[in-house]
Amino acid sequence: MPEPTPRVRVRRLPDRAVYERAAIDAILDEAPICHVGFVHDGRPFAIPTIHARDGDVLYVHGSTASRMLRTLSRGVDVCVTVTLLDGLVLARSQFHHSMNYRSAVVLGSARQVDDPEEKRRALTVVVEHVIPGRTGQARAPTEKELAQTTILAVSLDEASAKVRTGPPIDDEEDLGLPVWAGVVPLRLVSGEPVPADDLPPGLSVPSYPVRFSAERP
Amino acid sequence: MPEPTPRVRVRRLPDRAVYERAAIDAILDEAPICHVGFVHDGRPFAIPTIHARDGDVLYVHGSTASRMLRTLSRGVDVCVTVTLLDGLVLARSQFHHSMNYRSAVVLGSARQVDDPEEKRRALTVVVEHVIPGRTGQARAPTEKELAQTTILAVSLDEASAKVRTGPPIDDEEDLGLPVWAGVVPLRLVSGEPVPADDLPPGLSVPSYPVRFSAERP
Repeated sequence: MPEPTPRVRVRRLPDRAVYERAAIDAILDEAPICHVGFVHDGRPFAIPTIHARDGDVLYVHGSTASRMLRTLSRGVDVCVTVTLLDGLVLARSQFHHSMNYRSAVVLGSARQVDDPEEKRRALTVVVEHVIPGRTGQARAPTEKELAQTTILAVSLDEASAKVRTGPPIDDEEDLGLPVWAGVVPLRLVSGEPVPADDLPPGLSVPSYPVRFSAERP
Repeated sequence: MPEPTPRVRVRRLPDRAVYERAAIDAILDEAPICHVGFVHDGRPFAIPTIHARDGDVLYVHGSTASRMLRTLSRGVDVCVTVTLLDGLVLARSQFHHSMNYRSAVVLGSARQVDDPEEKRRALTVVVEHVIPGRTGQARAPTEKELAQTTILAVSLDEASAKVRTGPPIDDEEDLGLPVWAGVVPLRLVSGEPVPADDLPPGLSVPSYPVRFSAERP
């Protein structure tokens, strides 16, 4: 594994840092949305959007990034961050309260995907990222729809992750306090699907939106 | 209500834009974490952290923003964004797939909170934001812990929100396709609390980490 570049190295609480690509990939692949950080007119923005990884490339759906894209020509610096919240960490002291989480940060220059074949593939990857199996059923994009879609690509060369797991870490002298301490796990789960009003009768809910089901392992 | 400033005005899909402070506040108050966008050495970063609103001020816990804070003296431009993911929107066409979400974006200059009284209050607000009622039980911060904590404050003067709700919007000609369409609701829910290993016997789980309970209204 290559050494992390200075820019991507985690500075704060480095014991929580993760640089293994497999671990970073797993976080990127699980997160349903990302936040894209970029600079416009010298000022920072962080905008939520959808992403998907395809090997060593992270694709980012550009619909919400139009503010950025107006200034994009040969690539624009971005920071794509995903964060999975796994739990509330309740310590005896307020100071040691924390959260369990897994986050990944990808730094790089985003290029706009112009090649129609790559764009089509990127869109497939994005839809499959959110709802595995869906592209086999939903109507594929037309040429016109493809043209209306903006996809950015960022290399995963500069990526890192930060992970906190486990119980609260209290100071020795606080352990006897009569305060409950522990972790309240959190998870994004799906509810009962709501069919569109205009859905023809006889179409049952597909089995694939199970990614966030309460029963998943 | 004042007109939104040009900088904060939502450009893309403006029909989803929300500028009412009450609506923005509700999103900020519900979101357990935020992403802070900032510029360091001319490059963008977006880093997750914890926030809390206190009236017209948004406090941001600075622990993960140390990279930013090294350059902070009289204030630093930030973009604090929170996003609540409410559902997957499955359309007949891949193109019209979407997500239901509520996000709020706060633009402003972050000042470091130095006044001990404001800092103590900000920390209380942050802990109460995540776990209402907790500060009444957990040990309050010492002077030393306060000094070790970094809190940033951003005014809510420049804030906007973007909200998508409801069913997929398919093209007329796709309505007859034999493809299930609708919304798969998503929600962050809490699981069974895990007590710390070293918890003395007799301390029961407090009733207050119910914010994310599956039974909440």
